[in-house]
Amino acid sequence: MRAAKRTAQATPESLHRIFTIAEAPDSTLGVIEQEMSQNLAGFLGNHIVATKNALTDIEQDFIDAQIPEQPAFVSDHMDHLLDKLVAQSVHTSSPSFIGHMTSALPSFILPLSKLMIGLNQNLVKVETSKAFTPLERQVLGMMHNLVYQQDEEFYQAWMHSAKHSLGAFCSGGTVANITALWVARNKLLKPDGDFKGVSRSGLFAALQHYGYKGLAILVSERGHYSLKKSADILGIGQESVIAIATDENNKIDCKKLAEKCQQLAKENIKVLSIVGVAGTTETGNIDPLEQMAAIAQQYQCHFHVDAAWGGATLLSNKYRPLLKGIELADSVTIDAHKQMYVPMGAGLVIFKDPESVAAIEHHAEYILRKGSKDLGSHTLEGSRPGMAMLVYSSLHIISRPGYEMLINQAIEKAEYFADLINQHDDFELITKPELCLLTYRYAPKVVQKLLTKFSIDNDTEALSAINLLLGKLTKFIQKRQREDGRSFVSRTRIEVARYNGEKVIVFRVVLANPLTSKAILNDILAEQCLLAQESENFLPQLLSAAS
Amino acid sequence: MRAAKRTAQATPESLHRIFTIAEAPDSTLGVIEQEMSQNLAGFLGNHIVATKNALTDIEQDFIDAQIPEQPAFVSDHMDHLLDKLVAQSVHTSSPSFIGHMTSALPSFILPLSKLMIGLNQNLVKVETSKAFTPLERQVLGMMHNLVYQQDEEFYQAWMHSAKHSLGAFCSGGTVANITALWVARNKLLKPDGDFKGVSRSGLFAALQHYGYKGLAILVSERGHYSLKKSADILGIGQESVIAIATDENNKIDCKKLAEKCQQLAKENIKVLSIVGVAGTTETGNIDPLEQMAAIAQQYQCHFHVDAAWGGATLLSNKYRPLLKGIELADSVTIDAHKQMYVPMGAGLVIFKDPESVAAIEHHAEYILRKGSKDLGSHTLEGSRPGMAMLVYSSLHIISRPGYEMLINQAIEKAEYFADLINQHDDFELITKPELCLLTYRYAPKVVQKLLTKFSIDNDTEALSAINLLLGKLTKFIQKRQREDGRSFVSRTRIEVARYNGEKVIVFRVVLANPLTSKAILNDILAEQCLLAQESENFLPQLLSAAS
Repeated sequence: MRAAKRTAQATPESLHRIFTIAEAPDSTLGVIEQEMSQNLAGFLGNHIVATKNALTDIEQDFIDAQIPEQPAFVSDHMDHLLDKLVAQSVHTSSPSFIGHMTSALPSFILPLSKLMIGLNQNLVKVETSKAFTPLERQVLGMMHNLVYQQDEEFYQAWMHSAKHSLGAFCSGGTVANITALWVARNKLLKPDGDFKGVSRSGLFAALQHYGYKGLAILVSERGHYSLKKSADILGIGQESVIAIATDENNKIDCKKLAEKCQQLAKENIKVLSIVGVAGTTETGNIDPLEQMAAIAQQYQCHFHVDAAWGGATLLSNKYRPLLKGIELADSVTIDAHKQMYVPMGAGLVIFKDPESVAAIEHHAEYILRKGSKDLGSHTLEGSRPGMAMLVYSSLHIISRPGYEMLINQAIEKAEYFADLINQHDDFELITKPELCLLTYRYAPKVVQKLLTKFSIDNDTEALSAINLLLGKLTKFIQKRQREDGRSFVSRTRIEVARYNGEKVIVFRVVLANPLTSKAILNDILAEQCLLAQESENFLPQLLSAAS
Repeated sequence: MRAAKRTAQATPESLHRIFTIAEAPDSTLGVIEQEMSQNLAGFLGNHIVATKNALTDIEQDFIDAQIPEQPAFVSDHMDHLLDKLVAQSVHTSSPSFIGHMTSALPSFILPLSKLMIGLNQNLVKVETSKAFTPLERQVLGMMHNLVYQQDEEFYQAWMHSAKHSLGAFCSGGTVANITALWVARNKLLKPDGDFKGVSRSGLFAALQHYGYKGLAILVSERGHYSLKKSADILGIGQESVIAIATDENNKIDCKKLAEKCQQLAKENIKVLSIVGVAGTTETGNIDPLEQMAAIAQQYQCHFHVDAAWGGATLLSNKYRPLLKGIELADSVTIDAHKQMYVPMGAGLVIFKDPESVAAIEHHAEYILRKGSKDLGSHTLEGSRPGMAMLVYSSLHIISRPGYEMLINQAIEKAEYFADLINQHDDFELITKPELCLLTYRYAPKVVQKLLTKFSIDNDTEALSAINLLLGKLTKFIQKRQREDGRSFVSRTRIEVARYNGEKVIVFRVVLANPLTSKAILNDILAEQCLLAQESENFLPQLLSAAS
């Protein structure tokens, strides 16, 4: 920290200076950047996940709604950020932060990001992005190829065609899902005779014209919340998202899906889209995509696959078969900022048919003129950064076999962790890993036996009582562990088939960080055991109930 | 360029290495970053706007849809990027690139961006963003304060309240406008008795319940194309966006707006929102917001202001009065990546009423639990980067008076350029600058006189013939200038009141780059004169028509 607070002043000269790029590494800004880089490296190299500071305390540092009347020196402001922001942020790339879908980033990402931001291209149009436009189209081609594996002729024909697009880049999976369902909606309720289509005339006129009583989106009960959000935004309504039950492996029950399709057809409710999940957010499981595609085919509806998480698994030849049937989808969501190890803000939706995007085409006079190759005519967003470059570079520097190693390692690490939990006296595995996600909870073996007994006896009341105590204990451990800041697992509530479908609170882990070692996993369980011992309220009650 | 192509191989060790942050500046990556930084500084310091390479040629470098089976060395890949991407990108920050809303960035942005990307926070929830959450809420508070100027008590009450939000960060103005109209739609068609609201039950049921024949969004004919896109996405339909005529200053005609409101009311079409434009994309003009607010009040409809461009002008005490009435808006869109000089990907929508966002609230089990302060429960997007940090830092380092200087300079530069055009024998100013945008075209004074004569005579045919020739000439000059790569102005087509409302092709310039000097503006006109002389087809025809 610098000593006394100096006083800066905005002058035309000082403003001109800050817009002139400092070239020399020994310039003031060069020195500040060097200091910052070292500090950042130190932070990222530290295994602490987060400080103990409570959010309400941190808020006190971010309380002033006044825009400063006094400029700050860059060096002073950098110190302020390191002190108040960085030190109180979450170390999402820590190898012991295994609660969410963030991970360490490859080190080459930092200089490349600086290049991307320095160039400040706007991908909405060629005029502000030039070579970035064909680059993004190539990345869409590569990702299309990853999913659909068409021949070279296909890609030569469509990759750079003005009127076509193999997909759309966007800020994340939510916008990708909205875009996919927007395309599906506009294709279903397309212009027809005098009717100009839902895009121009709206949903009210569209349903009247086509004579449907309503629309439906069918997805398993493990579907991501962004689908309900999409249905809300698109005017279809959240209640149109119909949750289909899953089997004991968290995969959609195709028999129930088919029955629901049949029932809706009788009610004159048109299925807008069947959505398969490839890597559920909570358990990482993959729906039977091939069977779902057949049902979508039978009922002539759009088949979308939300592979925001699982899409990267296609890069592994070993585990690719888990997603069999994805090549039958009309559209697929993949987040590059998840297991493709690109920074936040890189989502993609890929369309099987290069003409699909015509359903959402927009033009304007000063940009996106008809016939231009402007990417903005086929995306939900307008102005967008050149994030595609980071996907392009990662695919080249890591390469497919490199990604395969990362993905295989992650799945095998999850299997190791599942074994560890299964062998441990005090933990219960709730969902076993198909990809690198799993859920478990603290539940001594003696308590587990009791639960099994109650299940067989169908003693719902006793089952619920124990699950409630276990839930409180899990919540207590998860919160304390997060607050202690050495490691982080998340928690959620899921239905467990073997306990009569009761919803229980569980720890949830995502093992995507290549730096997460087996030793760290052992430590995390050990820490949770210690915390359980500290839980004076729940553990004694549990053990007395079990004895 | 490095000489021979070396062969890299993906191994567990090489992968582990790339996920470990290199701390030392003399490490391989440190050296590569140093080289890249110098190259980037060289590129940004160069005044060339773009290379002459045609897009179809550049596409040849981005044609392979195969994901590499062979990893690339970072240094080799960096050379490849510098050669194929950077050298063929557009220099959007060049002082002679005055055709779009991009500008040079302050130099402190680069190290700060690196910090932001290195931390890789996910703002969707507190668990993956901790201090970034209150920081973003503070920035929303500061921007709310900029627009609405409430007292400290107001901000202390709402800024960090879990159930409230003063706005929503998003990737850009399009998502901001969609979010504003989504809120407006859900508030208008809210739950009522047995009806569960449009959010849950959809638009078809909502219109039936409320008995409206349709909805409408009213905006001037200069409104941004994202409003039609919003109407499409939200299920209202593009045709519901009704373009109201503008006066000779490109401002909405409030008499016509009021008449349209009255007419729609008679037809039982409910006005969902009146949208004021504060800084039209093509001409930079600002609608009479105060009068529009009164009309919105009279017809009890949402008043949104699209200040994606003009919002930053609020930072200037001198020019703030141009936006008088914005404080009466229910919602306001501002793009920080425009005249707030933040990199691409920073849009905002601000809501007057902190409870507005309840209309679009979403929850899920594992995140966004009810009562949490997770920002994701009130945004259209899900996972999002910590761009708010760059707005926060810019507001602190530049400060309001610094921004005021930048904005005042830009407007005064535009006035200077307008004078230059007016005094020039060969150019015609089409729209004079209110903010720092203006449009003009190549039209020798003798031709201008002729046009005036034809207008007075109401000789439409002759008027069109000359405008057609002038349009071709403008297009020719604009394309040639872009291709030559020393400077860039954009072009569009706008109606010109004094020529009987005929649509003419014009040059469009945005003078936001602080480094754009008067000398550069002189050079740009000189270059355009030279290009006009080269246009063998149009100029002689024009001059013969005029003689």
